[in-house]
Amino acid sequence: MATLASIRSNCRKVICIGRNYADHVTELNNQRPKQPFFFLKPSSSILLPSEGPVLRPSGVTLHFEIELGLVIGKTVRDLKESDASWQDAISHYLLCIDMTGRNVQNEAKKKGYPWSIAKGFDTFLPLAGPIAKEKIKDPHDVELWLSVNGDVKQQDSTELMLFQIPRQLSDISKVMTLEQGDIVLTGTPKGVGPVVTGDVMEAGMRIGGKEVEEAKMRVE
Amino acid sequence: MATLASIRSNCRKVICIGRNYADHVTELNNQRPKQPFFFLKPSSSILLPSEGPVLRPSGVTLHFEIELGLVIGKTVRDLKESDASWQDAISHYLLCIDMTGRNVQNEAKKKGYPWSIAKGFDTFLPLAGPIAKEKIKDPHDVELWLSVNGDVKQQDSTELMLFQIPRQLSDISKVMTLEQGDIVLTGTPKGVGPVVTGDVMEAGMRIGGKEVEEAKMRVE
Ligand SMILES: [Mg+2]
Ligand SMILES: [Mg+2]
Ligand SMILES: [Mg+2]
Repeated sequence: MATLASIRSNCRKVICIGRNYADHVTELNNQRPKQPFFFLKPSSSILLPSEGPVLRPSGVTLHFEIELGLVIGKTVRDLKESDASWQDAISHYLLCIDMTGRNVQNEAKKKGYPWSIAKGFDTFLPLAGPIAKEKIKDPHDVELWLSVNGDVKQQDSTELMLFQIPRQLSDISKVMTLEQGDIVLTGTPKGVGPVVTGDVMEAGMRIGGKEVEEAKMRVE
Repeated sequence: MATLASIRSNCRKVICIGRNYADHVTELNNQRPKQPFFFLKPSSSILLPSEGPVLRPSGVTLHFEIELGLVIGKTVRDLKESDASWQDAISHYLLCIDMTGRNVQNEAKKKGYPWSIAKGFDTFLPLAGPIAKEKIKDPHDVELWLSVNGDVKQQDSTELMLFQIPRQLSDISKVMTLEQGDIVLTGTPKGVGPVVTGDVMEAGMRIGGKEVEEAKMRVE
């Protein structure tokens, strides 16, 4: 069984789907995309449990985005959305927080700059898991939740994704080859918001109403 | 001595500086940045000599950008721009073409979308080298050139960089830890332009007027 440490050391790229839940698109006053779009986070932004808090760079408004993560298990190129064997591309699931410097991102969007800085600071990708594939029979029927200091901020089912996983893997792999060890973040539901130093984020995943032990996360 | 194949397999992230030569900023009608900005290319976009041509995705206007590349030799975090030992962070040099889907990038800039797709297609990062560090005593005094079907399109000295390498490494490493094997692209001089299928790009690097053998590149 893979560990989070081995998952990090085998990860070359992290590909994140943007705007993949309708209510999240609305809350940030964004346009709903006609097709999945995505961006990269560096693997150096990964934060494992017990490695300490998410670090807020000075002047940065830090937002959380809870997401279902996929660990890629084999080379994938030009996957067809209709390919019924798409789950073969996945070796494990993760629970991920796509930490975002929201003011940096807003500035980048205004100027037409890349998002890599806003998304790429060290500690901006806390992970929990891995969750065995067998545990998640249907990744489009998983409840994701995140609370800050005990208040639930995000709590929605992955059934609300605008573009489901086969479409995501298809669109990504038409642009860039997915390699074993790559991580895909599948987008965040509504409820994103700021955290400040000292806040405690807790997060998890429920299947059929039951908490998945491996996915439990607590980050300062 | 490292080989290009080992450099690719050890590379986790590729960080590219944007708008780092004044005349290139002007030719694309961009604003001159007040500080270095950067974006990520996936390591899956690397193309080694003899691996075949750069592939133009349908509907994509393909532009070349010749750049001096740095292979990072050790972990670098919060490097100071004034640190006189900045060359210790570099293990080798490369010659790189930052292939860009210019129409995809222009669309992304207009919409405030990330650049990852425009920059990240497979084959979008042809490499030549490695060039031993000892060969490049002063990386700010290297002539880069690129021709298309025999016509020289880019030919300028790295002395024209707006932000020199210590500043680049400083700014990057304040955001994301540089790890051994990471590659940094230092920006492109003026003269970028389109290539179509069948065009032949040749590129190289001159030091003191003399061609560097290891840097010679020929890509269709
Ligand atoms: Mg980007
Ligand atoms: Mg996200
Ligand atoms: Mg470039």
